[in-house]
Amino acid sequence: MFENASDRLPPPMEIRDLQASMAHLYMERDQTRGRDATFRWLTEEIGELAKAMRTGDRANLEHEFGDVLAWLASLANVEGVDLEGAVARYADACPRCGEAPCACPPA
Amino acid sequence: MFENASDRLPPPMEIRDLQASMAHLYMERDQTRGRDATFRWLTEEIGELAKAMRTGDRANLEHEFGDVLAWLASLANVEGVDLEGAVARYADACPRCGEAPCACPPA
Repeated sequence: MFENASDRLPPPMEIRDLQASMAHLYMERDQTRGRDATFRWLTEEIGELAKAMRTGDRANLEHEFGDVLAWLASLANVEGVDLEGAVARYADACPRCGEAPCACPPA
Repeated sequence: MFENASDRLPPPMEIRDLQASMAHLYMERDQTRGRDATFRWLTEEIGELAKAMRTGDRANLEHEFGDVLAWLASLANVEGVDLEGAVARYADACPRCGEAPCACPPA
C-alpha cells in the first residue's frame, strides 16, 4: 500500500513514543517559542505539504508528512494534550456513525 | 504531563495502526473525495484546532487534535505515504543537528 522512499520499514512507533521523543528533543524550545509561534510553524509545514503534493517528488512528500506530524506533536506537547488519547475514538469505528467502514453521508 | 478529558488512558496505538484503521474506515470515501478535497478537510481541521486553542475548552481542544491527526492519516492514505516511516527521523535525535535534545539555533 505504501511507497516510501525508505529502503526498509522502521520499527513500529507508538503515537505516545513519538510525542515523548518530540518532548525530549524540542519541549524547551517549543515552550520558549510559545503556542502561537508553534502553531504558525505547523501551518508553514502544512503549506510545504501542499507544495510537495504538487511537485510529485515522493521523498519530499514523505519528508513533509513527517514534518507536519512532528510539529503537530510539538504543539500537542505545548498544549499538554495526549495525541494518542485524542485520536483513540478513531481506533475501531467511525466516531460519528459508529460503523466500520464509515456509513456517514459523503463529505 | 497530559490533561486529557478521557477518564482513562487508551491502550497504546502505533502510528501504523492508526493509519490502517483510518484506511479501513475511510479509504473508499477518501479516494472518492480525492486528494485536493481531503487536503481541504485537513486545513479545515487546522482552523478548528486554532479556534479550540483560543476558547480554552480542554475537551474540544483534545477533540480537534484528534481530528487533525485523523485527517492527516487519511491524506497520507490517499497519497500512499507511510506516516510512521515519514516521522521516523524524529525518533532519536533532531534530524537537522543530530543532537538530543536539539541544539539548533532557535526557530
